[in-house]
Amino acid sequence: MRNLFEIDAWKIVENKFDPSKQQQAESIFSIGNGSFGQRANFEEQYSGDSLQGSYVGGVYYPDKTRVGWWKNGYPEYFAKVLNSCNWIGINIEVDGIPLDLNSCEVKSFHRELDMQHGLLTRHFKVKLSNGKELEVQSIRFCSMAKEEVAAISYSVTPINFSGNVKFTPYLDGKVSNHDANYDEFFWIEDSRKVDAQKGIICGRTKKTNFSVATAMRFSFWKESELLTIHPNVAERDFYVENNFEHYLEKGISYTLKKYVAITSTMNHSDFELAAKAISRVRDAYTGGFDKLRQDHEQAWLKIWENADIVIKGDTAAQQGIRFNIFHLYQTYTGKNAKLNIGPKGFTGEKYGGATYWDTEAYCLPFYLKTADPKIARQLLVYRYNHLNAAIENAEKLGFKDGAALYPMVTMNGEECHNEWEITFEEIHRNGAIAFGIYNYVRHTGDREYLKQYGFPVLLGIARFWTQRFNWSESKNAYVMLGVTGPNEYENNVNNNWYTNYIARWCIDYCLKINEEIGGSNNKLMSEKEIKAMRHIVENVYFPVLEGTNIFLQQDGFMDKEQLSAHDLPLTERPINQHWSWDRILRSIFIKQADVLQGLYLFEDHFDIETIRENFDFYEPKTVHESSLSPCVHVILAAKIGNLAKAYELYLRTSRLDLDDYNHEADEGLHITSMAGTWMAVVEGMAGVRVHESGLEINPTIPEAWQSYTFRILYQTVPLEISIDKQQVSVKNIGTNDVSCSVMGQVVQISAGEAYLASI
Amino acid sequence: MRNLFEIDAWKIVENKFDPSKQQQAESIFSIGNGSFGQRANFEEQYSGDSLQGSYVGGVYYPDKTRVGWWKNGYPEYFAKVLNSCNWIGINIEVDGIPLDLNSCEVKSFHRELDMQHGLLTRHFKVKLSNGKELEVQSIRFCSMAKEEVAAISYSVTPINFSGNVKFTPYLDGKVSNHDANYDEFFWIEDSRKVDAQKGIICGRTKKTNFSVATAMRFSFWKESELLTIHPNVAERDFYVENNFEHYLEKGISYTLKKYVAITSTMNHSDFELAAKAISRVRDAYTGGFDKLRQDHEQAWLKIWENADIVIKGDTAAQQGIRFNIFHLYQTYTGKNAKLNIGPKGFTGEKYGGATYWDTEAYCLPFYLKTADPKIARQLLVYRYNHLNAAIENAEKLGFKDGAALYPMVTMNGEECHNEWEITFEEIHRNGAIAFGIYNYVRHTGDREYLKQYGFPVLLGIARFWTQRFNWSESKNAYVMLGVTGPNEYENNVNNNWYTNYIARWCIDYCLKINEEIGGSNNKLMSEKEIKAMRHIVENVYFPVLEGTNIFLQQDGFMDKEQLSAHDLPLTERPINQHWSWDRILRSIFIKQADVLQGLYLFEDHFDIETIRENFDFYEPKTVHESSLSPCVHVILAAKIGNLAKAYELYLRTSRLDLDDYNHEADEGLHITSMAGTWMAVVEGMAGVRVHESGLEINPTIPEAWQSYTFRILYQTVPLEISIDKQQVSVKNIGTNDVSCSVMGQVVQISAGEAYLASI
Repeated sequence: MRNLFEIDAWKIVENKFDPSKQQQAESIFSIGNGSFGQRANFEEQYSGDSLQGSYVGGVYYPDKTRVGWWKNGYPEYFAKVLNSCNWIGINIEVDGIPLDLNSCEVKSFHRELDMQHGLLTRHFKVKLSNGKELEVQSIRFCSMAKEEVAAISYSVTPINFSGNVKFTPYLDGKVSNHDANYDEFFWIEDSRKVDAQKGIICGRTKKTNFSVATAMRFSFWKESELLTIHPNVAERDFYVENNFEHYLEKGISYTLKKYVAITSTMNHSDFELAAKAISRVRDAYTGGFDKLRQDHEQAWLKIWENADIVIKGDTAAQQGIRFNIFHLYQTYTGKNAKLNIGPKGFTGEKYGGATYWDTEAYCLPFYLKTADPKIARQLLVYRYNHLNAAIENAEKLGFKDGAALYPMVTMNGEECHNEWEITFEEIHRNGAIAFGIYNYVRHTGDREYLKQYGFPVLLGIARFWTQRFNWSESKNAYVMLGVTGPNEYENNVNNNWYTNYIARWCIDYCLKINEEIGGSNNKLMSEKEIKAMRHIVENVYFPVLEGTNIFLQQDGFMDKEQLSAHDLPLTERPINQHWSWDRILRSIFIKQADVLQGLYLFEDHFDIETIRENFDFYEPKTVHESSLSPCVHVILAAKIGNLAKAYELYLRTSRLDLDDYNHEADEGLHITSMAGTWMAVVEGMAGVRVHESGLEINPTIPEAWQSYTFRILYQTVPLEISIDKQQVSVKNIGTNDVSCSVMGQVVQISAGEAYLASI
Repeated sequence: MRNLFEIDAWKIVENKFDPSKQQQAESIFSIGNGSFGQRANFEEQYSGDSLQGSYVGGVYYPDKTRVGWWKNGYPEYFAKVLNSCNWIGINIEVDGIPLDLNSCEVKSFHRELDMQHGLLTRHFKVKLSNGKELEVQSIRFCSMAKEEVAAISYSVTPINFSGNVKFTPYLDGKVSNHDANYDEFFWIEDSRKVDAQKGIICGRTKKTNFSVATAMRFSFWKESELLTIHPNVAERDFYVENNFEHYLEKGISYTLKKYVAITSTMNHSDFELAAKAISRVRDAYTGGFDKLRQDHEQAWLKIWENADIVIKGDTAAQQGIRFNIFHLYQTYTGKNAKLNIGPKGFTGEKYGGATYWDTEAYCLPFYLKTADPKIARQLLVYRYNHLNAAIENAEKLGFKDGAALYPMVTMNGEECHNEWEITFEEIHRNGAIAFGIYNYVRHTGDREYLKQYGFPVLLGIARFWTQRFNWSESKNAYVMLGVTGPNEYENNVNNNWYTNYIARWCIDYCLKINEEIGGSNNKLMSEKEIKAMRHIVENVYFPVLEGTNIFLQQDGFMDKEQLSAHDLPLTERPINQHWSWDRILRSIFIKQADVLQGLYLFEDHFDIETIRENFDFYEPKTVHESSLSPCVHVILAAKIGNLAKAYELYLRTSRLDLDDYNHEADEGLHITSMAGTWMAVVEGMAGVRVHESGLEINPTIPEAWQSYTFRILYQTVPLEISIDKQQVSVKNIGTNDVSCSVMGQVVQISAGEAYLASI
């Protein structure tokens, strides 16, 4: 796989301007702070191909469903993360000629994402059509320390002339979504105001009535000297600007420092929204750029202290994992209980910035091992808060008696996806939520949560499964018909092994928890219901390949033409961009781990031989065209000792977007799968597990690595784990003693001590 | 089932104005002449709920596909039959108050569709809000004698006053499709012209560039006296009108006679289009209303002479069958080779007026037995003309080497449906086209057609099937994965029995014809291809219910919850309006004949016991929510001697729209299934078959009927067949002798003679 950008341990670097890569780069160099985010669009005008994107956490629009033929049960809308006010804009003009990298000669270009400090910088030189040359240096960040603030430092130096240059910093609320179903404009302008060196725009979303205020201030500097300027102000619909011409001396750098605050009704009342934005931007402006940047960098360094994975000897792998961790933290910090983790975070429009099963299946394990448990708890309570909506969702499909079907995609608990084969059929998502509860409880032992929040969710989900199975006379067992498993290259299959398995497990777990917390006098479920569920648990049908330990992905899987992904010509990959949907559906090729997803979640239920047999059967058939796939395969490959495959797939998962394996980085990054990449290292390479019995570490190390080091949090005890070719070191960097199993050896590690073992 | 309208042998009658039934009535009282058609909208302004619809044969718009998520292989557009210029409009106003049945008091109302003469009439009395009362009588028809002409006679009589009444005959091209995907307007106005007592509008469709000219003239009469009037003319975008006030004497009837001509570039060059419309409307105007009506009525009487089925003793059944025959002939007369038969004809927008497999599976058998064989040939040559497009369509999905997949929906050979489960998977349509070729040849023996047109189509289709089957190691047989059978309440199933069966048959038939017409020196196929096809024919897998003769609809069918349609509460039917798509897909309920469709087409391949066993298995599971379903069940029920069921389903098929069984007549009528209704009588009740061995008649008669009589054309010999409780009479009303089998007895019937036999 070719590398799109330079390899560097801490930075993503682009040293040549390539308009054909601009949209990919806009995604990859995106910045955010968990509260809002911004694609790496240019500050100055750019007339080339670009996907403009500025997103505010939780602010969405219910875009009317677009389908060919309406089917009963379809949701009314698909929720779209909204492209909101463009706050980065600073136009530059010389003698009426705009600075536009698409129309002038680019003499040099350097773009850099400094992941350590969370800074996006550019440094380029251009020659305009009138022969005048400019050098530009810009620095931009969304403050990790002040979550509603961003800042830009934009410096212009005339290279071969002295003369007037026009600066136009602006805010533009008239932005639209690229993927609007009916080309609607989603915003209503509430108010705008502009004055010298400041401006504000307040907009409100149609239908959902979110309000967002975006305020700016700016200052203008000649090198380190603050200049007094007298800008013109201008405004039109949903747009405010300042503009001023200034005489720039040749060789001297002039800097416009733009401060921005973005507030929304996710966090403020409509009444104080504008005032808050104004006061935030005033504080930022008063404190100054350097202070703001310092605080921001400090916040990032603090994150890295615990979140970093240091890989020695393999810079590509190092850059890959940091890229993943960096974007994860940019997307979700855990500070705001109302937010969740959209599959593309703040880097693109696709998937609507809404909540998917990705959160429970991929992100939760990451937060459980790296962050205060209250973040994981918060993510689970988010689902508890949507329980009634999940019950209504199930009712719309014909279920009853408190059965709950969580949506495939949601902003507020309502389903908002609009393909029947996904919305109605990809119900395994319900299982991932239940598993998330189990996983949280085994990591934290939080019974109070389980009783108050976890069990009601579990019960609703178990009731759904109970009704969704049906008895097959011909199989003399319960079957589940018409589902779509994790492998979305199949639709409407019968007895998807993964779905049947997680559904049965879920009913069983619900019964167990009912017994445990219900007690004898406080029965939460009726005897009748318990009996019905028990009967299902004991009689579920699973498709298997006779004479082997291979679990079949679904009924009829062996009727397919038995091919391997190696048979596919490279020119036909990814197949989803080259093959008709029809051909994909009929083929053996698997988009993402399906049976293997189940073996990953329930690895305790299977012996290593069974896992190996299934891995060897399915991995060659898997094309990994879902970002959620390779990480699971890494973990299993490491477990069965197939380190070469684990390493190959690790590179794929960690550099998926950086190297754009699936030719879609232009649309945005695969944020939720980035947590899977972290797991690929920690659970995969390092073999870290938290079972109900406690913490286990069974490390391996890829050939290409000298060593790797990371931290995890285990029951409030932070541990630093280092693995090299010779040994593993587990250091207790907390204040309480801890007990764990290292390569099968149960050990006590006192606070401040390290346990070393040869590997 | 309640009757929506009065029961009458020749008429559909409505004696009360019910605005809630208006849209149903607009469909049911539709008129057309094979060239264009018009829903039964009112001439005068109507502000109530209405689906305005005026359609010109073959004139369509490629409406950009509307899907949630694009899938490779999707067609760019869904072809829409276009709502075109409103030519019926005649507004009436008294003292500035419009005559509008939605806002005035309707004192009496009578609407009538005279099917014998092809006339739509209304007779009503209203009181306006100013107390003035009017009586209106209107007659409307689309001329069966002059296929580009229509006329309206609209009479107004003041009941309780003498005074001015304003008449405004107009043409309005500014009409839009109710189901436009993006609310686009599909027309561009080319020109308009208006003068006293005449006007013309020429419009052109966007993208497809069809032009349509609509011209009008009118005269005004006091009883039988032609009046001279001096109307005002007015026009605006895409609209022309005349308007004039006239003093009407109390109790005297004043009549506006409006003549219309509609020409399109389907039949004329763009250059002469307007001139043709003008000359057609001039001729109509000059000839006068009565002459036009007389010619029109004569044309209808001539159609009925051969097409009628006379049922004695059961007026509901009589009305039902005539309603079907009437609408069939209104939709397709066979005069124009460029046209085909849209599922809703000229009665609604749904299904886009495009060509479906309905044509070959349902309409072709009707035309083969009732019309000059050149009509059936013309329908088949239509497909031959689309062969290259069908090959391209298959290539888009990944097939090669001349494999042809005919579209599910088409106007010009390109696929224009946009649900993957239909477009990509409902491929049995290919089989129906091949069967159509076989059926035509066995009726006509036309080898010249077979060689020149039939075989290339057959070969393309057989090649498609050959590639679409795949070898299953596990079944040691060829399987066909991921299809949707005729029963659209299943999607993406494996080994649909019907599809496998017709596909295998088709390959086999292709091989047979190749041998027959290819000869030894003129091989049309390579030995390799023949061998590969032969291997498939000999090794196709079919799902069966072990221990029975029941063919399973698809793999896994027996895993479903085994219910009967009798278990469904009436409040949940039709299930497609009450159940989620998810629930429908998982249920046992069958939308339309699937396995039984196969047994119907290939009845010679199965013994009666097998047919009975399958009928008894599937009929209770079939909800007949496709109009194409009950007729097939009638035929099989009659064959196995279940006359009660045959009669029950006959009423359902023949009165499907009249009694609106599926609550959807408002959207238009089920035109293509009407041919199935005809088959239900002729093939079902009367047991008429044309096998390769010749004509067979095995009549039955339902309890409720005294007798029934119809004509068929067998190898150019017209026969009149009468069946009553005692006997069957087969009368040769042609000029050549004929031989056939009546109840197993092979008989010769001389020209002019009848053969009688007791039953």
